[in-house]
Amino acid sequence: MDAATNRITRILEAFQRGELGLDQAVDAVSSETRLDVRVDHDREDRTGVPELVWAEGKSDSQLLEAVGSLWKGSGRALVSRVTPEQATILAAEFPRGRWHEGPRLFVISEQPVRSLPGRIAVACAGTSDSRVAEEAAVTAEFLGLTVDRVYDVGVAGIHRLLGERDRLADAGVVIAVAGMEGAMPSVLAGLVPGLVIAVPTSVGYGLHLDGVTPFLAMLNSCAPGVLVTNVDNGLGAGVAAAKLHRHYSSLGGRDS
Amino acid sequence: MDAATNRITRILEAFQRGELGLDQAVDAVSSETRLDVRVDHDREDRTGVPELVWAEGKSDSQLLEAVGSLWKGSGRALVSRVTPEQATILAAEFPRGRWHEGPRLFVISEQPVRSLPGRIAVACAGTSDSRVAEEAAVTAEFLGLTVDRVYDVGVAGIHRLLGERDRLADAGVVIAVAGMEGAMPSVLAGLVPGLVIAVPTSVGYGLHLDGVTPFLAMLNSCAPGVLVTNVDNGLGAGVAAAKLHRHYSSLGGRDS
Amino acid sequence: MDAATNRITRILEAFQRGELGLDQAVDAVSSETRLDVRVDHDREDRTGVPELVWAEGKSDSQLLEAVGSLWKGSGRALVSRVTPEQATILAAEFPRGRWHEGPRLFVISEQPVRSLPGRIAVACAGTSDSRVAEEAAVTAEFLGLTVDRVYDVGVAGIHRLLGERDRLADAGVVIAVAGMEGAMPSVLAGLVPGLVIAVPTSVGYGLHLDGVTPFLAMLNSCAPGVLVTNVDNGLGAGVAAAKLHRHYSSLGGRDS
Amino acid sequence: MDAATNRITRILEAFQRGELGLDQAVDAVSSETRLDVRVDHDREDRTGVPELVWAEGKSDSQLLEAVGSLWKGSGRALVSRVTPEQATILAAEFPRGRWHEGPRLFVISEQPVRSLPGRIAVACAGTSDSRVAEEAAVTAEFLGLTVDRVYDVGVAGIHRLLGERDRLADAGVVIAVAGMEGAMPSVLAGLVPGLVIAVPTSVGYGLHLDGVTPFLAMLNSCAPGVLVTNVDNGLGAGVAAAKLHRHYSSLGGRDS
Amino acid sequence: MDAATNRITRILEAFQRGELGLDQAVDAVSSETRLDVRVDHDREDRTGVPELVWAEGKSDSQLLEAVGSLWKGSGRALVSRVTPEQATILAAEFPRGRWHEGPRLFVISEQPVRSLPGRIAVACAGTSDSRVAEEAAVTAEFLGLTVDRVYDVGVAGIHRLLGERDRLADAGVVIAVAGMEGAMPSVLAGLVPGLVIAVPTSVGYGLHLDGVTPFLAMLNSCAPGVLVTNVDNGLGAGVAAAKLHRHYSSLGGRDS
Amino acid sequence: MDAATNRITRILEAFQRGELGLDQAVDAVSSETRLDVRVDHDREDRTGVPELVWAEGKSDSQLLEAVGSLWKGSGRALVSRVTPEQATILAAEFPRGRWHEGPRLFVISEQPVRSLPGRIAVACAGTSDSRVAEEAAVTAEFLGLTVDRVYDVGVAGIHRLLGERDRLADAGVVIAVAGMEGAMPSVLAGLVPGLVIAVPTSVGYGLHLDGVTPFLAMLNSCAPGVLVTNVDNGLGAGVAAAKLHRHYSSLGGRDS
Amino acid sequence: MDAATNRITRILEAFQRGELGLDQAVDAVSSETRLDVRVDHDREDRTGVPELVWAEGKSDSQLLEAVGSLWKGSGRALVSRVTPEQATILAAEFPRGRWHEGPRLFVISEQPVRSLPGRIAVACAGTSDSRVAEEAAVTAEFLGLTVDRVYDVGVAGIHRLLGERDRLADAGVVIAVAGMEGAMPSVLAGLVPGLVIAVPTSVGYGLHLDGVTPFLAMLNSCAPGVLVTNVDNGLGAGVAAAKLHRHYSSLGGRDS
Amino acid sequence: MDAATNRITRILEAFQRGELGLDQAVDAVSSETRLDVRVDHDREDRTGVPELVWAEGKSDSQLLEAVGSLWKGSGRALVSRVTPEQATILAAEFPRGRWHEGPRLFVISEQPVRSLPGRIAVACAGTSDSRVAEEAAVTAEFLGLTVDRVYDVGVAGIHRLLGERDRLADAGVVIAVAGMEGAMPSVLAGLVPGLVIAVPTSVGYGLHLDGVTPFLAMLNSCAPGVLVTNVDNGLGAGVAAAKLHRHYSSLGGRDS
Repeated sequence: MDAATNRITRILEAFQRGELGLDQAVDAVSSETRLDVRVDHDREDRTGVPELVWAEGKSDSQLLEAVGSLWKGSGRALVSRVTPEQATILAAEFPRGRWHEGPRLFVISEQPVRSLPGRIAVACAGTSDSRVAEEAAVTAEFLGLTVDRVYDVGVAGIHRLLGERDRLADAGVVIAVAGMEGAMPSVLAGLVPGLVIAVPTSVGYGLHLDGVTPFLAMLNSCAPGVLVTNVDNGLGAGVAAAKLHRHYSSLGGRDS
Repeated sequence: MDAATNRITRILEAFQRGELGLDQAVDAVSSETRLDVRVDHDREDRTGVPELVWAEGKSDSQLLEAVGSLWKGSGRALVSRVTPEQATILAAEFPRGRWHEGPRLFVISEQPVRSLPGRIAVACAGTSDSRVAEEAAVTAEFLGLTVDRVYDVGVAGIHRLLGERDRLADAGVVIAVAGMEGAMPSVLAGLVPGLVIAVPTSVGYGLHLDGVTPFLAMLNSCAPGVLVTNVDNGLGAGVAAAKLHRHYSSLGGRDS
Repeated sequence: MDAATNRITRILEAFQRGELGLDQAVDAVSSETRLDVRVDHDREDRTGVPELVWAEGKSDSQLLEAVGSLWKGSGRALVSRVTPEQATILAAEFPRGRWHEGPRLFVISEQPVRSLPGRIAVACAGTSDSRVAEEAAVTAEFLGLTVDRVYDVGVAGIHRLLGERDRLADAGVVIAVAGMEGAMPSVLAGLVPGLVIAVPTSVGYGLHLDGVTPFLAMLNSCAPGVLVTNVDNGLGAGVAAAKLHRHYSSLGGRDS
Repeated sequence: MDAATNRITRILEAFQRGELGLDQAVDAVSSETRLDVRVDHDREDRTGVPELVWAEGKSDSQLLEAVGSLWKGSGRALVSRVTPEQATILAAEFPRGRWHEGPRLFVISEQPVRSLPGRIAVACAGTSDSRVAEEAAVTAEFLGLTVDRVYDVGVAGIHRLLGERDRLADAGVVIAVAGMEGAMPSVLAGLVPGLVIAVPTSVGYGLHLDGVTPFLAMLNSCAPGVLVTNVDNGLGAGVAAAKLHRHYSSLGGRDS
Repeated sequence: MDAATNRITRILEAFQRGELGLDQAVDAVSSETRLDVRVDHDREDRTGVPELVWAEGKSDSQLLEAVGSLWKGSGRALVSRVTPEQATILAAEFPRGRWHEGPRLFVISEQPVRSLPGRIAVACAGTSDSRVAEEAAVTAEFLGLTVDRVYDVGVAGIHRLLGERDRLADAGVVIAVAGMEGAMPSVLAGLVPGLVIAVPTSVGYGLHLDGVTPFLAMLNSCAPGVLVTNVDNGLGAGVAAAKLHRHYSSLGGRDS
Repeated sequence: MDAATNRITRILEAFQRGELGLDQAVDAVSSETRLDVRVDHDREDRTGVPELVWAEGKSDSQLLEAVGSLWKGSGRALVSRVTPEQATILAAEFPRGRWHEGPRLFVISEQPVRSLPGRIAVACAGTSDSRVAEEAAVTAEFLGLTVDRVYDVGVAGIHRLLGERDRLADAGVVIAVAGMEGAMPSVLAGLVPGLVIAVPTSVGYGLHLDGVTPFLAMLNSCAPGVLVTNVDNGLGAGVAAAKLHRHYSSLGGRDS
Repeated sequence: MDAATNRITRILEAFQRGELGLDQAVDAVSSETRLDVRVDHDREDRTGVPELVWAEGKSDSQLLEAVGSLWKGSGRALVSRVTPEQATILAAEFPRGRWHEGPRLFVISEQPVRSLPGRIAVACAGTSDSRVAEEAAVTAEFLGLTVDRVYDVGVAGIHRLLGERDRLADAGVVIAVAGMEGAMPSVLAGLVPGLVIAVPTSVGYGLHLDGVTPFLAMLNSCAPGVLVTNVDNGLGAGVAAAKLHRHYSSLGGRDS
Repeated sequence: MDAATNRITRILEAFQRGELGLDQAVDAVSSETRLDVRVDHDREDRTGVPELVWAEGKSDSQLLEAVGSLWKGSGRALVSRVTPEQATILAAEFPRGRWHEGPRLFVISEQPVRSLPGRIAVACAGTSDSRVAEEAAVTAEFLGLTVDRVYDVGVAGIHRLLGERDRLADAGVVIAVAGMEGAMPSVLAGLVPGLVIAVPTSVGYGLHLDGVTPFLAMLNSCAPGVLVTNVDNGLGAGVAAAKLHRHYSSLGGRDS
């Protein structure tokens, strides 16, 4: 029983005990239920990607309602920022869904999405950054892209990145995820022709400012054309890559 | 006569007057000339876009040397953040170049670049933002793209943006430039399928923080997949759009 | 038994055990009780709204004393920032009061307030913002206003806001609550004639700065005349609306 | 001759001298003129206040075009953030306009606006704050309000504010302007029933942060219901007061 | 048994079990004990106030050693930032000491300090600020001052402060404690001749920045001569007042 | 002729030329003159120090009026933050006044102030800090104090401070002025019994934040009881010292 | 059983229960294991120090794998930012390792490192800073240095630092660790010839900004040549000292 | 004639004209001259490097006095942050000195310093960073070091840095200067064994925060042991390198 149901139950019990008059009870119940939820059914038509669900800050009933609505319409849903408790509730309701613990994603994809030609790469600097990198990769895969993962290629040992240069140079978009000083996307953007989408992470120590440090570094890259998402926003990078791929593949592109 | 030449002249005159000994003169002259300039000749092969020149902070001789080197190689050069004084010097040396006063760009394009299929859109919220929007647009054109300009469509009169929705929905990439509260890219990203590259500008009043306000707003867009450049960085947005277009058009895309 | 009573009990027990001398005991007890509480009995006469109680940071006894004092005087009290523990204590003491869990308000209104003509609207961008919106709405209702709630009308799907334009245009004051990038109040202020009071919320992810992002956006709205409250301060917006309504309705206004 | 005309002249001269080909000349000229200016003719109908013009950052031709368009439609225009140079240009073109040097406003009001019943007060803490206070007062007067000015009533000598309490208590809205530590609006809001709109100014010394200090103070006022504008934004406060007055006076209010 | 003793015990057990060799054991033990604690025995002679003990961040054994050393020397000690756990430990060791729960002070004063002539006042704006005010007051009393407490006199109801003006005007130093917007010290400094030492507190809501708001306000007071301590630093204000009183009373001052 | 007179002259000329109607001229002239200046004649009685004049941001006529009013009443005035241009104007009007160029003070003291017993010390860390130190010293002298200057005693050569320890230990108040890292007041407060009033200066290089660095250091001094003024606020420190001295010397203190 | 093993177990159980198909199970398992860990085996050859392991943010299996790999290669490993839980796991796997609770280091050094000639000093200002100082000291010892610890020599009692001047002047590098206002390294750098590496700590109260205060102070030291690490980064200081010592001792240095 | 002399002249002229009495004249003159300058004659003995002179903020007479005092003692002086005007004055007084325009240093070295064995490297990322790099290099040379300059090796073309790896790996200390995103020192520290001293520069565009961006990046380097100076503080890096070299070369080191 979720929190809203709980509250309504308590209201009715108070009414039954005579602690609330009829008017007060009606008023109280309607107050609990009158918050509109406006489902954006045609977002995919308008913007190229379906509505995704942020779990953070949603009550259990709000979450289940939002996911259920999307699942009924398309057989597919991606839920982000899912806590373990929310994952348990979602798994009970949608047993075909899959819980990605690291990136905190819950994914239902009973209906296959049309696979798009070409592929993107997702690179990350350190193992601690891999959760955010996975958020980007899984989101992109959910939206039909093929993803090449190139992890743990930070610049403290530049040979690791140089050794993967050819794989990275093949991709039209490289999502480059890094914390600490955020130097990797700059080096990468000087090595490969694809668009570099830089995702700063909150991984760091001391005066790191929760990700502001790599964020500022990526924003000020000496390699022109690097674009940036918010801190830890792998999902945003995945969505951006999908919008691009969907538009350009409709122009007749073939697998690279 | 540029500053470095001036300084060397003064050194030699002092030597002639006996104020400097031979060793001191040799030392002083070599000090003026020993700073390496390393030209990155193969950047276009590696990254898809040629080296561009930032004029800001460069001495006159450094600037002419850098532009001359690119012009000799390809008959083309784009110089950004050009002051009026620098523009005069560049125009004297490269009379075929063109000075864009608003976006502070100096462009030499004697050799045509291969025009790419498809087009992008550049939108801006207010007339004060148009300088940055032009930096993006002219950069993209220099790199071979066709640009559709949609200016003065800020959200204080939302009908202006809604009235241009079809033009904007046709583009694979929309560069959305805004100052003040930076709301336009969010509204736009909910209306069109193309990738929205948001460029915050330093246009604002009072507690605006030189562009941090629209910057943060764009970064936190409620529409997922919006990517952001640095404040006033129209050039970066233009380069990003060109990298995308070059990669995907090589996959066989045709004009939309 | 509240904390202060607890502490006094312990002091007396220590005195009984001989661990404290008489002087020490007197000193200690008086130290616990000498903090003045100055009740502001004529605030409503001076400022148009009665004193409201912030529960945050108050001890149980301070809280009960403040609420009891107001309730005795007028049969009405509004308590904000109430924790669940405090709500339990208040409900035990004031069984006719009502606990609003989302906005954390406890409201006692045994004596009706004179209902004012006209009405205001409270709009919010996302469901996560509804707690703050409810704080504004319930506060305004407590002070005698009629409130029209228009929720979940964020700009990522602008049609939702446009669809409610007529309801919103009827109100003399629209309290516009938003987190994320805080764009909704700007769009709204370009659509309706009423005063827009913007309330930023701390709802966001990544580099959102706990509400500073929508706050700055609202402050820099391209639509002139938007006024702003502190982050999450729905109560302040409700009070401001009530002060306005009370003053102007005394000038002879009728229901719109 | 403004800058744009200058630039076009130079383009045509270059064409005449044969330095530009026909295509280049056409391209260059159209580049100078293709920036759309979209006039928002029905803003007053939608939002209750006409479009106002920000002079800051506008070229001379853009400024004259914007002001001329408003003047032709209604015989009235208010231009803010006007530099002395811009004032000279405006005065030459619109000799009936009036230049307010302190608040940097240029006001044309050949057609009278319907005067609204009631009045507002504008208070400021120090003489240095009076420029911003005048921006608020003149804007409100331009929009039809009657304004009572109460200046130099900062809290370092609290008797000055207390001595004006009755005048201030009569107003439905008090615009309270202060720099330094920004304490005056808090004291005021505890003394009068009207809505307090607090306007922080950038007046201060040392670690004052260009107006952030009074801004934060006003935002955190211990008196509930204080609303805030951006730093130095007297215009915004004046517009807000006018929107309120227009709405409520349409409900039948009479002069207080 | 405190943490250091625990660790040494574990080292010796490991040695006994043969897991550590002799050298390793010696090394490990000495590592645990070699951190010097340098007691500053002559601080009172040098600076006028004895060393006080910050409990925060100290291990139990460090805390007991520091307090014991002071107590043995003078029969007096003041310990600040004491957690309830630390208070229990201190009370067991020093049963004559007294625990002030609000300001988190533990005070041992078996030997009386010479009482100084004159008195100071401690004022605070809200009841939530009283913990910090008590830290100042108890510290000052520990150092021999007579303290007049004037609490809950914030500016939202200015009559409360005005009503206590005479008491406050008698004191040579007024410690003025406030959170929220921190306006009270400015008003006070315009009313009384004594030195105002302003202590900002971290009490606030929303964009309050943990006390930076009242801090900046106090620093920018429009009343000259207001001095400021760090946020919540009642102890520092109490020490400052004592240093003053001690110096000047040695010049022959008598009770005011 | 000051700016206000200039403006009124221009208004009347325009009226004479018929460019302004009678009503407009009356309105314009009164607009220039209606800003109240409220002189705080009894501030010295209330707060122990007379009103001082900040020149910054004042028009010439406002400045002369404020200074003249104080001079007429008492034959004494202190004006701070005086520009060279303002100094010239003041010197012409008040030839007996003296201009202190470094600290930007203009001082008129035709009537002697009662000299107070005892003395204070003003210390500064580097020669660049001496302007702010002089602002403190001259202000204190103006208010009747005897000042012992101890300059250029920064901690990079600690022997300089140690060598002056005795002079500094004699003073009841030491105003300690420092820029850079602001370490000197902490060392000093551990050496002397007097109250240390720390004044941070904006002297520094690189990431110094215009005085925030020494400011934060002083605020977090490991020596308890250090009080702080705003950045570069020597005047505030001088006033604080005078308030103290006046109060305590009235208690019967004699020269130390 | 670590978290990754847990997750794989759950996947296989779900497969066994038929909740996952074969493809899904393969996909899920490989997802858990496909994150590359790239060991940097030749870092010591390249940079002079071996790879060290940050425990923070690593899963148990990642941690054990990283430490095990280093231990197998060299019989030595240093792990930093180790939680008590991680220490327990490491101690079980590597019983010859030693856990330093204060600095949170786990050190395995079965193979002795070549001891370098000369020695460094590690100084800290307060006992609360000793954890960070120990991180520096233990790291340096692990890398072959001899360390002289000089603790609790903060500037509030400058005689403590002066009394240790000779020991500190003998060291080629002094790592100076301080929180609060961070003044000690400045004083020290004016007293000794060795390089001062300043390490700010997050130890402080009130507006201390988690170590930004001493950090800024150290960065702006009035003594030239002070170098700074990140907040609480004792490890970085220890590594820097070791790099220096290794390079210079290879030049033929003897014990000082 | 410098400013102080000017002022004294004016005082005496006023005295001659009778505008100042004798007492006033004496007072005024002594005020101009009483600011102590304390020369730190034994700094080199204490700290290993002689006193250097910051020209910024010094009057002409203060500057000449400071430089003259050092020159007389040792025949050598280094003056930093020298404006062109100050350089002209210094060159007139010290014709054997040399003015480095880029790094704004004025260097007098008539007496040779003992050349130290070994050498350091100074690297910079872009040509705009070379001014700061030169400040480091010239300072180090002044103090007796041999410097290998490796300029324009930023990471946007990583091959440039890799191509100089051998030169850089030979140095015991590498001063790494970079603006923009500040990534170069991190890459470098993973490639070479010497100590990397990172110097951030204020070179950047948009949201670069005057050097805070590369500063934070360097501070958070993923390569351990990188030490940082203040923004643009090449001098500090040069001094640090010299202190190291002097200490270790005294241990018997020979040229590498």
